[in-house]
Amino acid sequence: MVATPVLNFELDAYATPRRQLIEQSLEQYTAICDPESLWQAMRYSLLSGGKRFRALLCLASAEAVEALKPGGLTAVEAAMPCACALEMIHAMSLIHDDLPCMDNDDFRRGKPTNHKVFGEAMALLAGDALLVLATEVLLRKTPPQVDRQCLIDVAAELARATGPEGMVGGQVSDSIATGLVKTVEAGNQEEAAGGHPPVQTAQLLESIHKRKTGALLRFATWSGARLMQANEDTLSAFASFGEVLGLAFQIADDLLDLTGDLQSLGKTPGKDQAAGKLTWVSIYGEEGSRRALADLESKGKALLSESGLPDSSTAALRGLLSFAIHRRS
Amino acid sequence: MVATPVLNFELDAYATPRRQLIEQSLEQYTAICDPESLWQAMRYSLLSGGKRFRALLCLASAEAVEALKPGGLTAVEAAMPCACALEMIHAMSLIHDDLPCMDNDDFRRGKPTNHKVFGEAMALLAGDALLVLATEVLLRKTPPQVDRQCLIDVAAELARATGPEGMVGGQVSDSIATGLVKTVEAGNQEEAAGGHPPVQTAQLLESIHKRKTGALLRFATWSGARLMQANEDTLSAFASFGEVLGLAFQIADDLLDLTGDLQSLGKTPGKDQAAGKLTWVSIYGEEGSRRALADLESKGKALLSESGLPDSSTAALRGLLSFAIHRRS
Repeated sequence: MVATPVLNFELDAYATPRRQLIEQSLEQYTAICDPESLWQAMRYSLLSGGKRFRALLCLASAEAVEALKPGGLTAVEAAMPCACALEMIHAMSLIHDDLPCMDNDDFRRGKPTNHKVFGEAMALLAGDALLVLATEVLLRKTPPQVDRQCLIDVAAELARATGPEGMVGGQVSDSIATGLVKTVEAGNQEEAAGGHPPVQTAQLLESIHKRKTGALLRFATWSGARLMQANEDTLSAFASFGEVLGLAFQIADDLLDLTGDLQSLGKTPGKDQAAGKLTWVSIYGEEGSRRALADLESKGKALLSESGLPDSSTAALRGLLSFAIHRRS
Repeated sequence: MVATPVLNFELDAYATPRRQLIEQSLEQYTAICDPESLWQAMRYSLLSGGKRFRALLCLASAEAVEALKPGGLTAVEAAMPCACALEMIHAMSLIHDDLPCMDNDDFRRGKPTNHKVFGEAMALLAGDALLVLATEVLLRKTPPQVDRQCLIDVAAELARATGPEGMVGGQVSDSIATGLVKTVEAGNQEEAAGGHPPVQTAQLLESIHKRKTGALLRFATWSGARLMQANEDTLSAFASFGEVLGLAFQIADDLLDLTGDLQSLGKTPGKDQAAGKLTWVSIYGEEGSRRALADLESKGKALLSESGLPDSSTAALRGLLSFAIHRRS
């Protein structure tokens, strides 16, 4: 059993004003231009709420470092374009994942999916557009006070975390495991999960999670610190913290599919289970998954202690980790 | 009638060795990693030949500027990652354009399209992956001697030329004009071309061409010069040259659909005409289109003269303009 977390830190008090700033910035970066219908489709998915978890992580990481280096540019000013770029890429991934040739979902967060409203062609192009707008916003809107090589590193790393080594690669492996796509050449090493013995299946699932969800969460915690020119120890601890948090986020998702209710989830629980999908719960069971979460929570907190920053600076990151693990939706 | 061009410049002698370097670099940037099947799908479209026209333009622009600034980094070394990024984005656009929800094409350059070989889901993801790999290659592989702010400007401009203001936006407007996508809200200003009077239709077509094909060609000629730190006069002349060339390229395409033969085109001629597609020829006729091409050729050459560079430095760019206009495929 996982103990209820005792938090001195008030996550809502931290997150609410920052979420407002994130929404304002996203709104500003996507003011409707020509072609109007494309911007409408982009905004429909980007501005439809959501927890803004990735953006908050990026800001919290930058702020953790700022506590040591007051003055000059604030962490929120330095990291906001990067935080918004993350939300654009997340929105794009949901649009493309929902398409008929992928998961073929009709609803997302209780609203019709992008292609149900705008059609498949427009949904495809709105996703493409959000993907490149993310890069443009990051490169053009990050204030000039941010070191130029830092910015180049962050933009290159965002591309890596999104591409074949990260989110898109994880999506491909997931699609292969669920039989959605088939490998073309005979003798290819990747096979549907059904063909793997249990240990290999667990490794495969962790590898999929690490890339499909984890790569962007790892990027979120690393990039905030990198933009503030954190030292190598902090960067390394924050990157590992993001990985741990990413895995915990996904295991919590799998548990919510088992135990959540329709109203708080905004989607039908039990869907993954009914579809026989490869999940943490299907391999380790409910109890095993809860134990894994407790371990990851300890590990994440230990990594923050190793970052070289005082506990007071990393309180928001600890709060976001606890949220990822104990959330109900 | 357009006069046969008299060229002292041997385009093949210029293009062939550079095409080999481009192919080598693309090969190197896409060495197969995990997931293998994703990289196979990416490479299938990226390494399937093609003229490498965008990449050559980028290199030729960088080399034109280098002629004034010998020593240090060569232009080809400075611009090759950018040239390859352009080819990746071009390949991605073809993969997504061919998808069933878009043009639903089964063949491209005489080979089955990406989704016919790898399936729709993989083709979608291979396109997404190429789009972000382009940014990663540009940012990570451009040599450190290139000024960091130049590199940031080039990467941001590549995103702009690809996104809603550029290629993707042009694709959306084209899809609206051909009725492939419909605008959602009543009272939206964009309508199918059938609803426009002739003058507005011509403006619409030019605006579509400018973004769908033109934005990346404009980027190609501008970026090569920007990476070599060309002055404002040269940058402005090269950007305008790229726009002119982009329009000429598209008009030549429309004429080839009318007059080309299957063997040299690698696709069925007359397809656009049979589909009643909005083309330059459908508005201005064959003779009017040829006149427009001749005007654009003069205009392009004049712009190069205004760039402040000696004619000997811009010979390759003039050669590529003539090629775009007089090519047979």
